[in-house]
Amino acid sequence: MKTMVVVAHGSRRAESNDEVRELARLLDSHADSLFDRVSCAFLELAEPSIPDGIRALITSGAREVVVMPYFLSAGRHVVMDIPGEVETVRVEYPDVTIRLAPYLGSAPELAELMLRHVQSG
Amino acid sequence: MKTMVVVAHGSRRAESNDEVRELARLLDSHADSLFDRVSCAFLELAEPSIPDGIRALITSGAREVVVMPYFLSAGRHVVMDIPGEVETVRVEYPDVTIRLAPYLGSAPELAELMLRHVQSG
Repeated sequence: MKTMVVVAHGSRRAESNDEVRELARLLDSHADSLFDRVSCAFLELAEPSIPDGIRALITSGAREVVVMPYFLSAGRHVVMDIPGEVETVRVEYPDVTIRLAPYLGSAPELAELMLRHVQSG
Repeated sequence: MKTMVVVAHGSRRAESNDEVRELARLLDSHADSLFDRVSCAFLELAEPSIPDGIRALITSGAREVVVMPYFLSAGRHVVMDIPGEVETVRVEYPDVTIRLAPYLGSAPELAELMLRHVQSG
């Protein structure tokens, strides 16, 4: 079973965390050809944590977990904190492939999307 | 003169702030039909601040400034802090149109972009 977990920062505003959960649900229902399941996890301030989010996927049968940092800039969280959390789980499950995908902000199409988006607002 | 300022959070990592500056430069050179100039500003931890970034555009001739929050979730920064900073400058320049664009994370195309991006990584 191939899965993806979208990792967001987490916010004190419940609506903001729910927005990430909603995105994961949307991806889960649209990514059938790529992933059997898509969920989300949070670096801080919301649940589940990154290790718990990955563990839940593995417990439900995942043999491959792609971790996608839902971050725009390669700050400390992307460069240090998220890889560290992922490593914690990697050592627990050596037989599961856990791959850290490039963070969202590194997508080259983002600039173009911004120009389209600003016109729609 | 119509302008856009991309507003990012700001990071302690200089490379992360430079990444935002690079994005603004890219947009500046590609958005000719939409904006005469695109720059960036930071909520905290980096310069210029949001008010200073908007003031710099106005001083250089902007009559319209679109403020685009380069954020993925509608957390406290998007809902409270950025609108507050924008309002500070709005009262200083009542004859300039300063419009707050929807934050990047509200773009509906983002989910699709994520699925393409994760495959490229």
